[in-house]
Amino acid sequence: MKALVCKNGKLKLVNSYNTPQPKPGEALVKIILAGICSTDLEIVKGYMDFEGVPGHEFVGMVEEAENKKLLGKRVVGTINAACGECDMCRTSIGNHCPQRTVLGIYRRDGVFADYTVLPATNLIEVPAGVANEEAVFCEPLAAAVQILRQVTVQPSDQAAVVGPGRLGLLIGQVLATTGCRPVLLGRSKRSLQLAKDFGLQCGLVSDAKDNAFDLVVEATGNPEGFAHSLRIVRPRGTMVLKSTFAGKSELDLTKIVVGEITVVGSRCGPFAPALDLLSHGRVRVREMIEKEFSLQDGLDAIAYAARPGVKKVLLRP
Amino acid sequence: MKALVCKNGKLKLVNSYNTPQPKPGEALVKIILAGICSTDLEIVKGYMDFEGVPGHEFVGMVEEAENKKLLGKRVVGTINAACGECDMCRTSIGNHCPQRTVLGIYRRDGVFADYTVLPATNLIEVPAGVANEEAVFCEPLAAAVQILRQVTVQPSDQAAVVGPGRLGLLIGQVLATTGCRPVLLGRSKRSLQLAKDFGLQCGLVSDAKDNAFDLVVEATGNPEGFAHSLRIVRPRGTMVLKSTFAGKSELDLTKIVVGEITVVGSRCGPFAPALDLLSHGRVRVREMIEKEFSLQDGLDAIAYAARPGVKKVLLRP
Repeated sequence: MKALVCKNGKLKLVNSYNTPQPKPGEALVKIILAGICSTDLEIVKGYMDFEGVPGHEFVGMVEEAENKKLLGKRVVGTINAACGECDMCRTSIGNHCPQRTVLGIYRRDGVFADYTVLPATNLIEVPAGVANEEAVFCEPLAAAVQILRQVTVQPSDQAAVVGPGRLGLLIGQVLATTGCRPVLLGRSKRSLQLAKDFGLQCGLVSDAKDNAFDLVVEATGNPEGFAHSLRIVRPRGTMVLKSTFAGKSELDLTKIVVGEITVVGSRCGPFAPALDLLSHGRVRVREMIEKEFSLQDGLDAIAYAARPGVKKVLLRP
Repeated sequence: MKALVCKNGKLKLVNSYNTPQPKPGEALVKIILAGICSTDLEIVKGYMDFEGVPGHEFVGMVEEAENKKLLGKRVVGTINAACGECDMCRTSIGNHCPQRTVLGIYRRDGVFADYTVLPATNLIEVPAGVANEEAVFCEPLAAAVQILRQVTVQPSDQAAVVGPGRLGLLIGQVLATTGCRPVLLGRSKRSLQLAKDFGLQCGLVSDAKDNAFDLVVEATGNPEGFAHSLRIVRPRGTMVLKSTFAGKSELDLTKIVVGEITVVGSRCGPFAPALDLLSHGRVRVREMIEKEFSLQDGLDAIAYAARPGVKKVLLRP
C-alpha cells in the first residue's frame, strides 16, 4: 500500500509499504480521510524517536474484523492500544497503560497510509449524519472534551484559551458548550479571525490582564504561551496544559506555588461525547479545513501544515 | 529595638531600629522565639526585593492591642495581612489578596527583631501545653497541613516527599496523620537520619522507581527535585509543589501532559489544626531544632541556617 513513513529521522512516501495484518482482536481499516495535527509535525521532526507510519486522526471503513457486524462500517478510533491487564488498565485508565502502543505515535503504525489496524474495541461507528470531513476531527475534539472530564467548568467562570490554532479552536468551542464564555487569546488579530467567525470572544494575549481568569487552557505548546497562561490565571485558579512541550524550556514556576495554582495535564479524550457534539452541530469544524491533499502529495501536505497559522490539513488516500 | 534589617541587598544587625507602632486593628507582639526558614534565606539573598526586617515564623507575647483580652497572651500569627475588602478577601481567600502585605516577606517588617506588629485577627493563642520551642514551628507546620486542604489523601495512597529538610520533615509527619505511609526521599542516607528517627519510611531519591507514587510532594525547591518528583509520580497522579522556585529553571513538562499529572501549588496554611497537632503530640518538632542563637548573633544564625543539611535554627531576642 501507499504510506508516509518515518525512518532515520526522515519522512518518505513509500508506494509499496506492507499492508498491515490485523492480529487477533484487531480490525483492518481502510482510511477515508486523515488529519494532520501538531503532534504529527513534531513526530516527523524526531519527537518520540518514532519509526513507521505517522498519523492518528482518521475516519475509515472496516474491511476485516472478527466481529462481522463491524465490516463495512464507517469508524473513527481511539489511539491508545492498551494491554488490558496491568494496574492502569484494570482501573479503567488504559490510556496510561505502560505497555500501550499509540497509533502513529509510539510503536504502532498510524493512518497516513491506505490502511491501518487497531484493536476492534478502539473503533466507534460514526453516526450517519456526521460527514467524513467532520468525523476526521473526532480525535482532537475528544482531546478538547477531556478537559471537561478533568476540571469542573462553571457558566460563570472566566475562561481563556491561549492559542487559537487547530486545537485551541476546538477547545474554545467545547468550553462554550458548558455555558461559560471563553476568550480565545492569540498573538495577532489575524490569528483570531476564525475564532471570531465562530462567535467566540477574542483578544490579544499581550493585552490580557494579570490574574484575570479562573481557568486558562494552554494550547500553544511553546514556553511563551505557558508564561502568558501562568501570568493571566488568578490565584487558586486552574491552568490546563493541553499541548505537548517537546524538550526542556526555561520556565519560572514561582507563581504556581505563591498563587496556589492547580496545573492539570490533559491528553486524549472520550470519542462518544465528541461524536455527539458533531452530530448535533454544537461544534463547527468544516470551516477549520485549510486544504486537502491526496496521500500521493503527503510530503507537500506535511510541509503545508507546518506553515504558521495554517488550520487543518487533510490527507485522502 | 534590635533587629536584623535587609537594605540594598545587604542584611545588617541594627541596634536602634524603630519599634513598630500598631495601627488601628493591629497588635504589638514581643517576640519570644523566631525560626529561620528557606524563604528567609532566599529573601536575604534578594528574593522579592524585600527591604526591612525579615522573618515570619515566631511565637510571642501581646504587649499592646485594642482588645484587652489579648494582652499578655502567648500567640502565633498568620503572615498574610489582607485588605478585607477585595474579591479575594470576600471569597475567604485573603491569603491571595492582591493588596496584602506579608510578614517579613512583602511590604511588612517581620520577626527577626524584639517586636513585630500584625493585625489582631492574625493572632492565635497558643494552648498552655505547647512549649515555645514547639509553637515556633506553627507557621511551617500549617503550610504542611495546607496540603490536606488541597488534595484528598487516602490511607492506601503511595505518597512520597522529595526533600527531607525542614519543611519535608513536617510534611512527611502531616501526611502520616492521614493513615498513609509516606516515604521521605533524600539525596543521601545522612539527610534521612531524622526522618528515620521519626519512624517515617525513607529512601534515596535516585533509587525511587519511575511512576511509582500516587502523590509526590516536592519540597526541595530546586530543579533536580522537581525533575525527580515528576519522574516518580504515576500517570494521573498528583504532584504538590511546596517550595518556592526563585527564578527560571530548565524544566521538561512533557510528562505533565502525556501522563495527565495534576500539579498543585501550595503555600500558607491554617494555624488551628497545626496547633492541634502540636498540642496532641502528633508531630515531632523539638528534634528538628539544630541550634538557637541570640538575636544579637543573628547574622551568624542566618549563615548557619544556610549550611546544607541544617535543620531548624532559632533566634531568641
